[in-house]
Formats: sequence, C-alpha cells, structure tokens
Amino acid sequence: STVKSDNEGGKYIDLSNKRRATVREFKGVTFLDIREFYTKDGEHLPGKKGISLSLEQWQILKQHVDTIDSLFAKKK
Amino acid sequence: STVKSDNEGGKYIDLSNKRRATVREFKGVTFLDIREFYTKDGEHLPGKKGISLSLEQWQILKQHVDTIDSLFAKKK
Repeated sequence: STVKSDNEGGKYIDLSNKRRATVREFKGVTFLDIREFYTKDGEHLPGKKGISLSLEQWQILKQHVDTIDSLFAKKK
Repeated sequence: STVKSDNEGGKYIDLSNKRRATVREFKGVTFLDIREFYTKDGEHLPGKKGISLSLEQWQILKQHVDTIDSLFAKKK
C-alpha cells in the first residue's frame, strides 16, 4: 500500500517528496489535509501551505475529477 | 455547467461558499489551486489557506480517490 501513518494518527499518501494528502481526525471530525511539509532536525513538520477539506468538500472535488482534468487539458 | 470563471482567467468550481478549486495558469504552468476566499468590498479575494497542486500532484491525488474514501470511511 502507498498509505503511510504519521505520529498523530493520520494516514497519508505522498503527492511529492514534500507534499502529503492526509486523512486526519480533529476534534471528532475527519478531514483531508493537503499540505506541504518541511524538514527540521530530521522531522517532517507541516508547513503553512495547505488546506483541510471537510468530507463534503472532498466529495465535491471528487465529483469534479473529469471537469478538472478537462480544464487542465484545455490549458496545455 | 458548474464551472465558473474568475477575473484572472482561472476556471473554478465551488467546494463551499468560500472555498474554490481553480485551474489556473501561472508563468506558463497550469495548477489546481484549492483555496479559501474572503470577501472585501464585495470582491472575492484569495486567502492564505490553500495550496496549488501541479498537474502531477493532482494526478497522484486523483489516483488515490478510492484510498482516501476508504480512509474517511474508517474514521467515521
């Protein structure tokens, strides 16, 4: 599996060597956090660049996968 | 269509009433910007919360739609 675990109970996939998509629970609510990380003293720490999507927001994004793909294709 | 246009040539879908997923070209490269907006003097302006994904990062996220769904399902 490409799913990894962080130290806070989150499960994530790597989007690049310093970006992660993490499913994480916070105050009883589950979010998808898409975020850049930086390394300090060998530790990977969350940076400022990022956003935590609610399940509902993730579902809307997911519903528009084909739309987003076609927008990328038009721009190229 | 649910695709809207912003004033900078970006095309976006609403993820909530103040969050957008925008496909935008910047310096000749196309990104997916997932971002929170705020309103000032009737204008919608991009906030700090957000991240711009490259096409490659978007493709990786897209490949893991089912994985992310199952991680959400496990957390509930």
